[in-house]
Amino acid sequence: MPQKIIFATQRYQYLKDRILSISVPSWENGVIEIRDFPDGEHYHRIRSNVSNKEVVLIGGTIDDKETLELFDIAHGCIQNGALALSIVIPFFGYSTMERAVKYGEIVKAKTRALLFSSLPGTASGNKVIMIDLHVDGITYYFESGIRPVHLYGKTFVKEAALELAKGKPFVLASTDAGRAKWVESLANDLHVPAAFVFKRRLSGEETAITAISADVQDKQVIIYDDMIRTGGSLLHAAAAYLQAGASEIAVITTHGIFAGNGFNKIKDSGLITKIICTDTHPAALTIQDDMLVVKSVDKLILDYFDTLQYPK
Amino acid sequence: MPQKIIFATQRYQYLKDRILSISVPSWENGVIEIRDFPDGEHYHRIRSNVSNKEVVLIGGTIDDKETLELFDIAHGCIQNGALALSIVIPFFGYSTMERAVKYGEIVKAKTRALLFSSLPGTASGNKVIMIDLHVDGITYYFESGIRPVHLYGKTFVKEAALELAKGKPFVLASTDAGRAKWVESLANDLHVPAAFVFKRRLSGEETAITAISADVQDKQVIIYDDMIRTGGSLLHAAAAYLQAGASEIAVITTHGIFAGNGFNKIKDSGLITKIICTDTHPAALTIQDDMLVVKSVDKLILDYFDTLQYPK
Amino acid sequence: MPQKIIFATQRYQYLKDRILSISVPSWENGVIEIRDFPDGEHYHRIRSNVSNKEVVLIGGTIDDKETLELFDIAHGCIQNGALALSIVIPFFGYSTMERAVKYGEIVKAKTRALLFSSLPGTASGNKVIMIDLHVDGITYYFESGIRPVHLYGKTFVKEAALELAKGKPFVLASTDAGRAKWVESLANDLHVPAAFVFKRRLSGEETAITAISADVQDKQVIIYDDMIRTGGSLLHAAAAYLQAGASEIAVITTHGIFAGNGFNKIKDSGLITKIICTDTHPAALTIQDDMLVVKSVDKLILDYFDTLQYPK
Amino acid sequence: MPQKIIFATQRYQYLKDRILSISVPSWENGVIEIRDFPDGEHYHRIRSNVSNKEVVLIGGTIDDKETLELFDIAHGCIQNGALALSIVIPFFGYSTMERAVKYGEIVKAKTRALLFSSLPGTASGNKVIMIDLHVDGITYYFESGIRPVHLYGKTFVKEAALELAKGKPFVLASTDAGRAKWVESLANDLHVPAAFVFKRRLSGEETAITAISADVQDKQVIIYDDMIRTGGSLLHAAAAYLQAGASEIAVITTHGIFAGNGFNKIKDSGLITKIICTDTHPAALTIQDDMLVVKSVDKLILDYFDTLQYPK
Amino acid sequence: MPQKIIFATQRYQYLKDRILSISVPSWENGVIEIRDFPDGEHYHRIRSNVSNKEVVLIGGTIDDKETLELFDIAHGCIQNGALALSIVIPFFGYSTMERAVKYGEIVKAKTRALLFSSLPGTASGNKVIMIDLHVDGITYYFESGIRPVHLYGKTFVKEAALELAKGKPFVLASTDAGRAKWVESLANDLHVPAAFVFKRRLSGEETAITAISADVQDKQVIIYDDMIRTGGSLLHAAAAYLQAGASEIAVITTHGIFAGNGFNKIKDSGLITKIICTDTHPAALTIQDDMLVVKSVDKLILDYFDTLQYPK
Amino acid sequence: MPQKIIFATQRYQYLKDRILSISVPSWENGVIEIRDFPDGEHYHRIRSNVSNKEVVLIGGTIDDKETLELFDIAHGCIQNGALALSIVIPFFGYSTMERAVKYGEIVKAKTRALLFSSLPGTASGNKVIMIDLHVDGITYYFESGIRPVHLYGKTFVKEAALELAKGKPFVLASTDAGRAKWVESLANDLHVPAAFVFKRRLSGEETAITAISADVQDKQVIIYDDMIRTGGSLLHAAAAYLQAGASEIAVITTHGIFAGNGFNKIKDSGLITKIICTDTHPAALTIQDDMLVVKSVDKLILDYFDTLQYPK
Repeated sequence: MPQKIIFATQRYQYLKDRILSISVPSWENGVIEIRDFPDGEHYHRIRSNVSNKEVVLIGGTIDDKETLELFDIAHGCIQNGALALSIVIPFFGYSTMERAVKYGEIVKAKTRALLFSSLPGTASGNKVIMIDLHVDGITYYFESGIRPVHLYGKTFVKEAALELAKGKPFVLASTDAGRAKWVESLANDLHVPAAFVFKRRLSGEETAITAISADVQDKQVIIYDDMIRTGGSLLHAAAAYLQAGASEIAVITTHGIFAGNGFNKIKDSGLITKIICTDTHPAALTIQDDMLVVKSVDKLILDYFDTLQYPK
Repeated sequence: MPQKIIFATQRYQYLKDRILSISVPSWENGVIEIRDFPDGEHYHRIRSNVSNKEVVLIGGTIDDKETLELFDIAHGCIQNGALALSIVIPFFGYSTMERAVKYGEIVKAKTRALLFSSLPGTASGNKVIMIDLHVDGITYYFESGIRPVHLYGKTFVKEAALELAKGKPFVLASTDAGRAKWVESLANDLHVPAAFVFKRRLSGEETAITAISADVQDKQVIIYDDMIRTGGSLLHAAAAYLQAGASEIAVITTHGIFAGNGFNKIKDSGLITKIICTDTHPAALTIQDDMLVVKSVDKLILDYFDTLQYPK
Repeated sequence: MPQKIIFATQRYQYLKDRILSISVPSWENGVIEIRDFPDGEHYHRIRSNVSNKEVVLIGGTIDDKETLELFDIAHGCIQNGALALSIVIPFFGYSTMERAVKYGEIVKAKTRALLFSSLPGTASGNKVIMIDLHVDGITYYFESGIRPVHLYGKTFVKEAALELAKGKPFVLASTDAGRAKWVESLANDLHVPAAFVFKRRLSGEETAITAISADVQDKQVIIYDDMIRTGGSLLHAAAAYLQAGASEIAVITTHGIFAGNGFNKIKDSGLITKIICTDTHPAALTIQDDMLVVKSVDKLILDYFDTLQYPK
Repeated sequence: MPQKIIFATQRYQYLKDRILSISVPSWENGVIEIRDFPDGEHYHRIRSNVSNKEVVLIGGTIDDKETLELFDIAHGCIQNGALALSIVIPFFGYSTMERAVKYGEIVKAKTRALLFSSLPGTASGNKVIMIDLHVDGITYYFESGIRPVHLYGKTFVKEAALELAKGKPFVLASTDAGRAKWVESLANDLHVPAAFVFKRRLSGEETAITAISADVQDKQVIIYDDMIRTGGSLLHAAAAYLQAGASEIAVITTHGIFAGNGFNKIKDSGLITKIICTDTHPAALTIQDDMLVVKSVDKLILDYFDTLQYPK
Repeated sequence: MPQKIIFATQRYQYLKDRILSISVPSWENGVIEIRDFPDGEHYHRIRSNVSNKEVVLIGGTIDDKETLELFDIAHGCIQNGALALSIVIPFFGYSTMERAVKYGEIVKAKTRALLFSSLPGTASGNKVIMIDLHVDGITYYFESGIRPVHLYGKTFVKEAALELAKGKPFVLASTDAGRAKWVESLANDLHVPAAFVFKRRLSGEETAITAISADVQDKQVIIYDDMIRTGGSLLHAAAAYLQAGASEIAVITTHGIFAGNGFNKIKDSGLITKIICTDTHPAALTIQDDMLVVKSVDKLILDYFDTLQYPK
Repeated sequence: MPQKIIFATQRYQYLKDRILSISVPSWENGVIEIRDFPDGEHYHRIRSNVSNKEVVLIGGTIDDKETLELFDIAHGCIQNGALALSIVIPFFGYSTMERAVKYGEIVKAKTRALLFSSLPGTASGNKVIMIDLHVDGITYYFESGIRPVHLYGKTFVKEAALELAKGKPFVLASTDAGRAKWVESLANDLHVPAAFVFKRRLSGEETAITAISADVQDKQVIIYDDMIRTGGSLLHAAAAYLQAGASEIAVITTHGIFAGNGFNKIKDSGLITKIICTDTHPAALTIQDDMLVVKSVDKLILDYFDTLQYPK
């Protein structure tokens, strides 16, 4: 059994630390030296010996700098003799640009998959491990030289739902028609009803959202969405469910990004009582507010390396 | 402008003939000699000169024989000097096995994409052109050496809906939560309401389907689904909408497969008044029944080569 | 030494069972779940853990369904983490279409080699292991990412020849000029004379076959051919040797396919007294007749994994 | 002769505009729609028809955002049917990290080359065109599927030197031993003497630079370097040449980056009288100062497409 | 129709000159500058403009120097923008090492195929064109990025046979069992009988060759073999046919190599009256002797580019 | 820890023997059977079992025969199941043709890198290990499927310099401007001054070399160059340093090729007192003269496999 060694990009050090605090002493803490230059370039040097070790590298494609840093460190580990390379991408940025709807649109989910597919192989192969992708199919966007893995945070969602429900009945609801299937599946796992919305296009950019489930009346509604970016869709859906009679709205999301002052907009709306998200995106950790609970995916990642890759 | 020449696998000759009858005289009719042997092998020989021509090759991955025939003819065209190769796959079989839900499941949509991606390139490149895929992302399952194109049959669906509605108001409905997004989009294009279903798992394999839209009462419901395989989901959804008060159910589907005596089961159920499908699968053409109207995708394909690949 | 696990396609289960019965308990029995659907699609799920194991997968390219099943299972094993993959193809179908003689002929031996070459690599690499190929060169038709291996059934042929000769002198004979070299080599190994035939083209499709060896007079002739497909060439050669004075004709072949009622045609001809073949093709096992003896290649395959891959 | 169409990343629009102003009306102005989102993602859509056109795409790898934008737009042009793709990278950022000196250093020049090499091919092939690379060999760092081109700005340097010299004799000088070869070659072209420096390491990080040419006494020294990043090496060399008796120091550089307030540091030093650079990096254009003259590489790029790619 | 330009390696200039003398003025004469250095290195520079031209490059893999020169010039043409590249290899050296018979043998025919397969592609693709290969399958040893073509010198053999026969009946004969198939086919084309030999292994290296055709008595025997290397097999076969009563032996061969003083050994044996070969190997041209007639393959090559690549 | 086995091409057996004499008994001596044929072909057979072993293969690209032998043996080791392959190329021939200066020049350093990059991968990957490359960047000319390693002979140079200096002060000098950087670095390591030359082009091919360092007067000058090919540049530089007042010239070089009677020319010039080189090129070993000391790189290579590939 070869030694595992873990690295992370600059903004994902927190997740590396959490995993090391659980996995210690079996995993080695990988050291990288990084310097950023005034001209926009960066210097990276791997200071740990990676030769013949299984490298686990954590980083999200959350912006251009992190994306290229992840690519560069991965390449460095390969060139210096890593036996195996598992790139853990807790939040796969660009996953909402997953297909071209109009001529000429550039499908970032594909170009990012292509990027990581271009890495030379390690002896035991390269893997990309992603969590709660916006679209399942992205798993198969990678070229055949790399093995993609999709981890589902179902356990997190179920535990969060039970925590929010506090024993009372609730309805699991989606923010748009695209997530209907997933919410249906989760609702069935939780043995609760599901609620969807229908987004009617009024004219041009203007839309009206209607909750099209009859049974939210006087019930707590727990909305699940894979990610909250600016919170716009979430607030529209929440308003629709309240209008349909819901007594209270709580929210579960895997990826809490809250871009562009998103969290405050949600809080200020007064529509939502509580949000539970994970730490797949570093932004979630920067918010200190009672309304938000952040749970770590550390164990989900660690479990994958221990047991999840084997059949059940 | 190089000469276009069109070939088809054995079971898709009808579509080649239709396209030639429209495109004549500009496209050349490609001739292949095919012999099937008692030991399960096949002999293929391209009899037309393909050198420096743009080859359009039509065939669906509807079963193993057609799949390999498509692969073999494609390879033959490449080896004999085709300038460009466009493989038109009107129905991309295996598109419902588009992701692994359980450990060890083999994702056929990926392995089929890999198959066609392994073809050597032509001078002007290889394309795969598909119609109304079950899942959009399949477009991006192909390796980067081949250019995938996804044609949408929106015009067909709209025209079929108007034909079925005969001027009366109707609701556009889906057969399951997974298609909710697409039906929402089509309903908005048609300026009609949308209806969804919620499939509640009762125990193990048993499920109950509920229409969760309030406004089908006394209205015609037109169900759209990308494909009808055996018709099972369709009949469950139809029953749910009728139970919710719909006055009548008509159906539009792109791919009419009707496997395992599927058409008769639908007809015998008495739940549905009319079905409109396309000829993307040869099975649809074998059914002669007033209840079924089959429209050809010939023009959709031809339009792609004429104008659809350019921006609007 | 990693654990070996063996899988087979549906029609090659018998060979997997034979190998397991010999190799037990060291090799693990790989379990796959397969379902065939009425629309021509298939569902495959690998139920055994293949992660970090050496997978041996058996299946012949005997028809389109088996070919794609072999490809799909191979892909599944790779995606689920197999350490190494050895695809054993006891009978490489299409091996007689091994080169284009006329413009436009599609070389199936090449397209099938390309198919298996497109599989992503495993950590310890992919191999294809074939037995008594119709043409040696096919070994080198595969792309460089896969390692092909050619096993020769020389021991089988020699033992079969001695069994048929029952201690009496005999001549080893070929069915056509293309196998002359191989028969020459086997005859030298057995220290017996060799006999060839010359096929003279009379007109168009008509040919006359002449034995062009003087020494078959009153001797037993044992014909060796790599495969019997429909038996046509075999019967023509047998008649030529009898006409040249042979006292009796027996036959050895590696691949007994007997397509299109081939076995009965041979038996009914009365020209041949005995046939010995192997079980590389499942068809041979379906024939129950005293005239046919089927020997298994199980040990040949197992020997390869034990010792044959090392130098002597 | 196919139509040429030109695109640029956001920060290189100025160079596209210059080239269009010269090449008009023969080249088409490519239109891209770009939106930057608060979460760090970007939306790109190609609005011009690129199908069967020769695409020229301009952008430097000057920071992470521009690098990925260049990669994404290139991919979009390929996917939408560009006949040929020439990526012009006027300043190849990271070119100073062109080899690993210590264990574990990540060679950015290689990983950037790998990035662009992973783009799928166009019918007529992909090219990368670079100008005055820091190290010649970088041309060959690209994988074999892409054709790299290195343009030399020799004409620019010669004209700038004559402009600075104003007819008086001068010495061409280098800033470090690594550029000695290049300066030697340019000096010979200009028929002037060359001067080098020797950098002696005193202790740890401390170094002393000595001009080791006897003939700068009372002469104008024109220093040439491929790039000025922060200006540190330049100022040390200038001081050394002045100490050796030079009457005046002027500077020519291809890439004027002037990072981290570099230009002001140079100006404030008072060591240098004049700098001439090109517009390969957008930073040079932001400086408005009599001491700096910026010449465009527009004609050098255009000449390549007209004549430079052919033999002389 | 793009301009064709032809190059050759140093030892194949004669064949380039012959082709140019026929094809003039339509093909351009490609100029290369070559210098050989005392340390074993070589300098090559393409002096003609190859950009957007169809390059035809002639050279045989007759020794290590020519092989690498062919590879290097091919690469140079690609890098300098050739539109298409056809590498004509009149004699594919190493074609007799076309498979491993014993463990550890290195299959040169495969490694040479791999070598040329590693060349980057041109816009219209790379081809390798070979003549009368020792083994047909070698055509398919190339990786899928290159298109191999096999030209048959059947017309040459037929004309040579008629020239040698001078109107008298003759038998077409082979030198070993491996060529039996080919000789059978040629004999049928010429409407003459065929004769084979059987090589009996006596002990270890010692073999005895017997003609096993009854009908050579008092007839002229024309032996055909694809190549004469040292002439050993040829002389053994000739002796066997003479012993079987042949009145006279003449020889046709495509590739006349005559290595190690081979021609004189044949001549001195007195067994053979005349040899006709082609100029696929430069060695044949160095022999000036009435016994040898050398015919050029210039027209065969030119015909390929004119018409042979199209179907008949 | 897998078994290491070492092979060498014919002309590098001496280096294999030296390494085995140090590494014994842990490394296995690999046996190859090689036969050269009169027609220019070669037969290679690997006689040792390489399956699942780490193969170290030594050979320089010193001429065409050695280059292809290295390629062929490497391929044979891969095909026969080597676990890992490290190709040690002590002298990378063609390294001076490392970039195209004029249109049409073929960059041999790139085509040779491409050659070795085309080898199929082994389970643990392929490496190329080179020593004191003429240009650092060559390390990155290889395609991404192979891992290049550059070993520096700094220790050898330092020890040789101390041995030559015999405790007296000396100046480290370069033979041309291109090596200035390297000599500067070595001089700093040795705490001695550095001297450079400036090569002034007089007219056409004629050049005059001037030492441009003031401090060689009455001092011993030790010239370092990476290779001595014919010795021309070396002698010009030596003359320049003597003219500048140097008391004595000694020389250190990594690669002693001495092509075209180079050693005698140097000796006869009388300019140089002593040369120390390594045994990276077999030519150095053929010279028996007191003026030349040859040190082996055996330990440098062995150290790499023991410790150099790990971080310090």
